[in-house]
Amino acid sequence: MAANPQFIKYVDDHQADFIDRLRQAVEIPSVSGNLDYVKDVEDMAEFLVKQLTSLGVKVEKRPIGSHKIGETEVALPPVVIGEIGNDPKKVNLLVYGHYDVQPALKEDGWDYDPFKLTPDPNGSGRLYGRGSTDDKGPVMGWLNVLEAHQKLGLELPVNLKMVFEGMEENGSENLDKFIASEKDKFFKGVDVMCISDNYWLDTKTPCLTYGLRGINYYEIKVQGPARDLHSGVFGGTIHEPMTDLIAVMSKLVSPSGEILVPGIKELIAPVTADEQAKFEKIHFSLQDIEGAVGAQTTLSNDTVTTLMGRMRNPSLSLHGIEGAFYAPGSKTVIPAAVKGKFSIRLVPNLGIKNTTDLVVKYVQDEFAKLGSKNKLDVYLTHGGEPWIADPNHYNYRAAHKATVEVYGQEPDYTREGGSIPVTLDFANILGLNVLLLPVGRGDDGAHSTNEKIDTSNYINGTKLLGSYMYELAAIDKQ
Amino acid sequence: MAANPQFIKYVDDHQADFIDRLRQAVEIPSVSGNLDYVKDVEDMAEFLVKQLTSLGVKVEKRPIGSHKIGETEVALPPVVIGEIGNDPKKVNLLVYGHYDVQPALKEDGWDYDPFKLTPDPNGSGRLYGRGSTDDKGPVMGWLNVLEAHQKLGLELPVNLKMVFEGMEENGSENLDKFIASEKDKFFKGVDVMCISDNYWLDTKTPCLTYGLRGINYYEIKVQGPARDLHSGVFGGTIHEPMTDLIAVMSKLVSPSGEILVPGIKELIAPVTADEQAKFEKIHFSLQDIEGAVGAQTTLSNDTVTTLMGRMRNPSLSLHGIEGAFYAPGSKTVIPAAVKGKFSIRLVPNLGIKNTTDLVVKYVQDEFAKLGSKNKLDVYLTHGGEPWIADPNHYNYRAAHKATVEVYGQEPDYTREGGSIPVTLDFANILGLNVLLLPVGRGDDGAHSTNEKIDTSNYINGTKLLGSYMYELAAIDKQ
Repeated sequence: MAANPQFIKYVDDHQADFIDRLRQAVEIPSVSGNLDYVKDVEDMAEFLVKQLTSLGVKVEKRPIGSHKIGETEVALPPVVIGEIGNDPKKVNLLVYGHYDVQPALKEDGWDYDPFKLTPDPNGSGRLYGRGSTDDKGPVMGWLNVLEAHQKLGLELPVNLKMVFEGMEENGSENLDKFIASEKDKFFKGVDVMCISDNYWLDTKTPCLTYGLRGINYYEIKVQGPARDLHSGVFGGTIHEPMTDLIAVMSKLVSPSGEILVPGIKELIAPVTADEQAKFEKIHFSLQDIEGAVGAQTTLSNDTVTTLMGRMRNPSLSLHGIEGAFYAPGSKTVIPAAVKGKFSIRLVPNLGIKNTTDLVVKYVQDEFAKLGSKNKLDVYLTHGGEPWIADPNHYNYRAAHKATVEVYGQEPDYTREGGSIPVTLDFANILGLNVLLLPVGRGDDGAHSTNEKIDTSNYINGTKLLGSYMYELAAIDKQ
Repeated sequence: MAANPQFIKYVDDHQADFIDRLRQAVEIPSVSGNLDYVKDVEDMAEFLVKQLTSLGVKVEKRPIGSHKIGETEVALPPVVIGEIGNDPKKVNLLVYGHYDVQPALKEDGWDYDPFKLTPDPNGSGRLYGRGSTDDKGPVMGWLNVLEAHQKLGLELPVNLKMVFEGMEENGSENLDKFIASEKDKFFKGVDVMCISDNYWLDTKTPCLTYGLRGINYYEIKVQGPARDLHSGVFGGTIHEPMTDLIAVMSKLVSPSGEILVPGIKELIAPVTADEQAKFEKIHFSLQDIEGAVGAQTTLSNDTVTTLMGRMRNPSLSLHGIEGAFYAPGSKTVIPAAVKGKFSIRLVPNLGIKNTTDLVVKYVQDEFAKLGSKNKLDVYLTHGGEPWIADPNHYNYRAAHKATVEVYGQEPDYTREGGSIPVTLDFANILGLNVLLLPVGRGDDGAHSTNEKIDTSNYINGTKLLGSYMYELAAIDKQ
């Protein structure tokens, strides 16, 4: 069922008001994890509470404990929860967003004050400001939808629950505990979930995102001498930890990107026909990635292979070495202890544990082959499981129809190469089908300078979120 | 001819005076290359001028241009030159020392004020202080020799020229130009040279040092993407510069220390019987190196192999990587451009150029094998030739005899694994046999906190320098 035409018209007629709502939100510099902005994060929570209350939502601010910023113990930003509607005949939709933002300083290279929403003076429609797309734009989108229905006197087609956190940019501390503790209370009865906190793959094609790669981050520590040594005095006499580490690190991944840890490849879930079809339909060219990367350096010249390399296959990246010389210039040091850092992006069925078992054994075996007198340790520093949702679930089918209505084109079905840990928390703890429904474009620069959202994405995004509710209400749930 | 017994007695009788001379020198914090100490370096030059003048030496302070410290252009510390004696029947000896010191702050971990000469209160005879062994101790040693002869009314057995610089700890800037410009003036007629600016191999055995390894320092730069990338978004799609760099770096040296660059091994000058014998005589055990290193991690369990590994064979050390992640913690970055840093210690006949030709070709060939779309550049950042002197030259034979007289034992014949660039400048520009005649012990901690010289080394060192002059005067020059 397409959205009520009055709703669509209201959105079109109130673009300026909606942009003003986003302007107010951006002006509150709700940078989480920074003592200087603790009050602003609280103000932003309060802003949400007031807006939601005025829009007829039953709202609560929930404390979720405290954390340390530097040496100071401060309360974590509250979780703002709200609900509107409890008709047992309607679908129960849960939406998530976050009201905190990444740090931003004008002197980082912003063209404008990052905490003033600034329309591009060249008339491109871009709205610059920290949080404009990550994630205040989408959150205000939901508020816009509520405003339209309230002002038009329309009932929402679904029962809506909302959860907005203020620590997403700092690891969503304690949110998992909150979800678990509220599973049979606030979250009871939720049917499906929608998160708008990622982006289109390109700048033109709306998409639905049904998977995320996980990540296992490892360190390989090699230590020998008790202290750093001078290579003139000791070079040629001892086993150098850097030599051992570089030898082991060179055995992890081939220059063509193949993970060399035995057993990894065999774990990867086979590609289904449906998946293959979805990948082949994605609007994408090698020029897109070359443009983003700024160089012609793709591993493959085939688009589907490249997309699968990003979204559904594991990858291994060597990030760096701690303890070695890293500054410009020359230093003739033999580092005493070095830590190589690498990570593996996980996909079904590469889990934290089975992958780690293979990695640890392989690294130890390869080190043993070197015959070095140094000592090696290899360990996981943190892990995040991969996630995949059923993209044929009615939650996705509803979003698909809404996308066609708003944008006049079918969405791409994408998966993110990176992780969005809250997705897994909601999906696993609550046992929900989670839809990732992006509002912004691939070039929004979420964590960068000059973060922006295009006006058309913000306004069409508002329509999309509303239309999705209507389709969700009407769709065949089988 | 052994030293005049009056000289030996004078030294024994005036230990306290000599320690006081060193105390005065250490109290002038002549840290070169630091704006805060420019005046102190000048004061130290003036101290030398006054002392030398009072000891009957014809002294000059020579300006050698200016340099920048930060943004400030300041005069380089002057070279202090002095000469005493011009008897055409005598050997013309040139000695070198430096009057500047490494930085030192009490809070770096010194037990005492680094600029107060402090005798060990436990009575070990150690004299702590910055510059005590590097290089004010040896320089004061020469002054002590002069004082003894002046006070005793004895003529020096050689014509002595002295050159003391104030920039050794900062690259001896412009000293090479000064040597070249004075080759046919101040340095005219010099027969042999002695530098006391290195150390015994251990804490018990005096040594003569007849060789230094050179060094070629290289960078391998690999660049691909135009900017650092997120491994979640781009891992598995592009050629990662770190993967390429680690692969190439792993091909440079084996875990057993063997340089894998083809052609290097073949260039190494064969070991002569005389060399072999000298190495076998060195007082050294694996425990010495394990103690210095703080771990049992030697490449070989054989002492001669280990000593040759340090002194007469090339070695390749991987120092680190610039541009990659190096801090504690985790960062999921794909670095856009990385520079691997390594150096090769050079020995006869591995020169700067022939070694670089082999290295550059090999690295380029190995990179080509990877089939990467990234770009690699490999280049020498600085080079220093190896140096070796004839240890059977009369200059060495004289020092050998003097050592036996003062210490009652034959010296070890050692070579330094590191470089002392001024040695090459004097040897090559002036065409001299240069003797490296250490005064201090291997555990003096020249550039460390709690730098010290043992009283016995300072006093016996004074005797050694004097006795060396006497032997030099008498020895068969053939």
